Amino acid sequence: MRTSIATVSLSGSLTEKLTAASRAGFDGVEIFENDLLASPLSPREIRARCADLGLSVDLYQPMRDIEAVPDDEFGRNLRRARHKFELMRELGADTVLVCSSVSPLAIDDDGLAAEQLSRLAALAQDFGIRVAYEALAWGRHVSTYDHAWRIVEAAGHPALGTCLDSFHILSRGSDPKGIEDIPGAKIFFLQLADAPLLAMDVLQWSRHYRCFPGQGGFDVAGLVGHVLRTGYDGPLSLEVFNDVFRQAEAGPTAVDAHRSLLVLQEAVGVGELPAPVVPTGVAFAELVTPDAEPVSALLGALGFARTARHRSKPVDLWEQGEARILVNTGPAARRDGTGLAAIGLESPDPRAAARRAEALLAPVLPRRRAPEDAPLDAVAAPDGTELFFCATGRDPELPDWRADFAEVPHEPGSAAARIDHLALVQPWHQYDEAALFHRSVLGLHAQESVDVADPYGLLRSRAVTNADGSVRIALGVGAAPADDTLHAQHIALAVEDVVAAARAFRAAGGGLLPIPANYHDDLAARYEFADGELETYRGLGILYDRDAGGVFRHCYTRTVGRVFFELVERDPGYRGYGAQNAPVRLAAQHAGRPAR
Amino acid sequence: MRTSIATVSLSGSLTEKLTAASRAGFDGVEIFENDLLASPLSPREIRARCADLGLSVDLYQPMRDIEAVPDDEFGRNLRRARHKFELMRELGADTVLVCSSVSPLAIDDDGLAAEQLSRLAALAQDFGIRVAYEALAWGRHVSTYDHAWRIVEAAGHPALGTCLDSFHILSRGSDPKGIEDIPGAKIFFLQLADAPLLAMDVLQWSRHYRCFPGQGGFDVAGLVGHVLRTGYDGPLSLEVFNDVFRQAEAGPTAVDAHRSLLVLQEAVGVGELPAPVVPTGVAFAELVTPDAEPVSALLGALGFARTARHRSKPVDLWEQGEARILVNTGPAARRDGTGLAAIGLESPDPRAAARRAEALLAPVLPRRRAPEDAPLDAVAAPDGTELFFCATGRDPELPDWRADFAEVPHEPGSAAARIDHLALVQPWHQYDEAALFHRSVLGLHAQESVDVADPYGLLRSRAVTNADGSVRIALGVGAAPADDTLHAQHIALAVEDVVAAARAFRAAGGGLLPIPANYHDDLAARYEFADGELETYRGLGILYDRDAGGVFRHCYTRTVGRVFFELVERDPGYRGYGAQNAPVRLAAQHAGRPAR
Repeated sequence: MRTSIATVSLSGSLTEKLTAASRAGFDGVEIFENDLLASPLSPREIRARCADLGLSVDLYQPMRDIEAVPDDEFGRNLRRARHKFELMRELGADTVLVCSSVSPLAIDDDGLAAEQLSRLAALAQDFGIRVAYEALAWGRHVSTYDHAWRIVEAAGHPALGTCLDSFHILSRGSDPKGIEDIPGAKIFFLQLADAPLLAMDVLQWSRHYRCFPGQGGFDVAGLVGHVLRTGYDGPLSLEVFNDVFRQAEAGPTAVDAHRSLLVLQEAVGVGELPAPVVPTGVAFAELVTPDAEPVSALLGALGFARTARHRSKPVDLWEQGEARILVNTGPAARRDGTGLAAIGLESPDPRAAARRAEALLAPVLPRRRAPEDAPLDAVAAPDGTELFFCATGRDPELPDWRADFAEVPHEPGSAAARIDHLALVQPWHQYDEAALFHRSVLGLHAQESVDVADPYGLLRSRAVTNADGSVRIALGVGAAPADDTLHAQHIALAVEDVVAAARAFRAAGGGLLPIPANYHDDLAARYEFADGELETYRGLGILYDRDAGGVFRHCYTRTVGRVFFELVERDPGYRGYGAQNAPVRLAAQHAGRPAR
Repeated sequence: MRTSIATVSLSGSLTEKLTAASRAGFDGVEIFENDLLASPLSPREIRARCADLGLSVDLYQPMRDIEAVPDDEFGRNLRRARHKFELMRELGADTVLVCSSVSPLAIDDDGLAAEQLSRLAALAQDFGIRVAYEALAWGRHVSTYDHAWRIVEAAGHPALGTCLDSFHILSRGSDPKGIEDIPGAKIFFLQLADAPLLAMDVLQWSRHYRCFPGQGGFDVAGLVGHVLRTGYDGPLSLEVFNDVFRQAEAGPTAVDAHRSLLVLQEAVGVGELPAPVVPTGVAFAELVTPDAEPVSALLGALGFARTARHRSKPVDLWEQGEARILVNTGPAARRDGTGLAAIGLESPDPRAAARRAEALLAPVLPRRRAPEDAPLDAVAAPDGTELFFCATGRDPELPDWRADFAEVPHEPGSAAARIDHLALVQPWHQYDEAALFHRSVLGLHAQESVDVADPYGLLRSRAVTNADGSVRIALGVGAAPADDTLHAQHIALAVEDVVAAARAFRAAGGGLLPIPANYHDDLAARYEFADGELETYRGLGILYDRDAGGVFRHCYTRTVGRVFFELVERDPGYRGYGAQNAPVRLAAQHAGRPAR
């Protein structure tokens, strides 16, 4: 289906918005009136710019409070409409949106509304324009889609149809099934937005908190299904008012937006995406660092052994049980200090996984490979993390990344761990986008978002996982742009016995994050422990959580650059990540830093 | 009255919070449990730190879901309480807050609640601790203050009283008058918070959007009046959960917080603040600039004449009618480029105005004066703008700032303007604080806040004015911290005839901000104009607005540094600032800048 986006959904000048929409693959745009008014380009120039960019101008919405008003007022509205229809002819837009009136002048008279809309449609028709009438959720007398449709039906004008908007319909809790009673040919336009499920004033909700389909809590796909069953064949068009998107760069937002429509089309059975290939494990995590020494010391103390070195690049492989860490000291590492740069995901079909990612607009990474390297498929996540699709030693038909490495002499690792989860810091404005990316591209399941109180602001965190928990990625974000660099990424290692692992780490010279005594005093008030158990935790800085499914014990290493490690011992039934201990961890990390 | 603040209201580590509260003048603190748990200081050390800072520890709230639970659960709760009471003895806190239960285990049985609270109070009494029971607005069975009080009354234990919280009472729309039925001695604590009037889920509203009294929409003073009439003599304590305050620097937030309590006490008649002295006009606006030339050229083109020079400092006075601009090229100007640094306000009693400002915690500015300078009273606003209280040529008894200036030869100014309004950019996290400051310190009235769509994010703006509109200050803020430097301050000059003024400005070589033709095309659709009128506006970049009170015509100069001028012609009945034209102006200003 054709895809479109309202320019109000993107940040920047009109030309920046158009460029971003085109590059992201949209077929058309709705031009928001304020964007046109503020543009130095004339309507004709905007039309030409759109044509150059391969965009149609699918909708314009220059008028408010048109219908069901006293006659003299309607006369002024028609006068205004004529101006706008002339403009639309220049702009090359053939559909005008008319939202139900919110004016105190509006009269509760469907007959009058129908008659005036009919007159408006007659004028529009002279300009080759169609009028799409839409119920605003907070319309004064018309606030539901079926009411708007009854008025359109009563008017009976060929140039008058209805526009459906998923936000206005779903925010009111209207049953979208009735959409199927509208003839598809009379649905002139379909605007789509999702929103988080907030119990708040609908106008504020609509103006500030809309998001792209799949990022919120509405069943947008269900609604679109009803619309498609009417025979509607117009565009799927995004109209999203969102305070964060207004500030974010238009380019990435447009990509996220278009991805949401691709996923939506898949959900309603009209897209042609390669099927998801859910990863089955973590093959490796890759750290980049300008200085291998502190990282090597940390890995060594954690029980990793350096087992191999890349044949042509300055990359070491460290292993411990099933956990593998690559340490890359190549040129890419020089810029940002030590960080978590890439994740290898075990994939049942690496090629197919990459094809789906590419179809969902993930940048495919060029591999600057040596001739003998294994041809690994990799894409970039929205936060820049590189995702490699791997088949580690599973199938002689598939390339194994380890073939690029030459074993080096080493002692066997001293412990057996695997990667429990990885925690990535997302750009401030891409929290919901990141979850949608990981869900749609990787086929992971997104858990609930949780707020975590950092001493210097609230953080949010949401985990995406596969069904058996062998892939768990926690996506975290600060409360404001400045926090992007405030918080560290981390790698959590699942161990059999966290007490033993912590002791071994410390004995090997590793530094554990000190946890305040007050925290363990509180544990004593909350739980009963075996003799000495709490003292053990206290001595090692082990934190403790418990839910209906079991117990979670964990501790943290000191931070190197922007990365630290966590040691976790997880009862199989425990589903969380110790979020309730995170404020104590964050405060301890801040306390260990130079003064702010 | 004694003032207190919950540590959760401030950003940072516990010791940062305590220091900020003490410096801002609070008498005590409520220690939030998470702050204690995350602190490396033991409870005894925290007590000592508080004592050093002159702070009492007025409240601790370590327990949830205590009452009306099955007996075995209550046994665990008592066990936990004993731990916490021991801690409180170390901490030197003698009042514990118990919020009504939100647990699914809680039983709807007031008798059971009273009996268990009584048992808890008996245990507390052994430790010299009082229990203050408070109804959470979202409590499972107890959600109103009168219900909580009935349970306390039924329990009848001397160590059990109630805690009132303005948010929980006013967010539910409860009538606070019934507070007067509670004996003051049984009100063990009073927590205060305001909040913007949002129609949203009360839990989310409470956790993220509380603000200090006077910053929101609740009648907190009215509630406090009821409480004081009971004879309550405990502290006024702020407990504010706010996402923005969590990120803002603790020092300024604590000052804003304490100011809000001073204003609140004045409102309920228990404070001793000097009375407000409302300014009666704008004496001058002061620009600082490292390079006087572009500013001088701009002022000259606007019709200002350089009339005088400061006797001892590199400051020029420019005049035009009643409008006076100081241009300061002194050392302070070197850092930030050209900006609006100070405002002179005509004050009926400058000394008294300064005394009130100082009593309300505005920093009094030291004047590095030459011996002969007039002793001007001045304070700093939260955004750093210097506010001078002036008596320009009004009273021979009062110092006149112009005496510091020596006239220089000049032609008379070519036009007659006055300052219509000044627009200041506020730090991101101080929007509500700025309004409260200007209201309370200067006695100005705050108008409604409006959202303005900038191409790169939403801005908010709110004007503070005196009754006759001779002082109008628009306080603007961006949507995120990064926007602080994105938007310019401006000085709006009221002129008799904006068309003539714009033409004269241009004829004198001044550069007007170009406004897109699309904007004027839209005016043609919305209004009918006399022949040629619209073409005149189009040619000069004049914008047009109209409300029930009249018409507003305005245009803008190009920006110099971070400052531009606006020329405005305002019908006397028009109360606004052309906010609906602001998006076009902002887009035009962005378009005139180097690419982002």
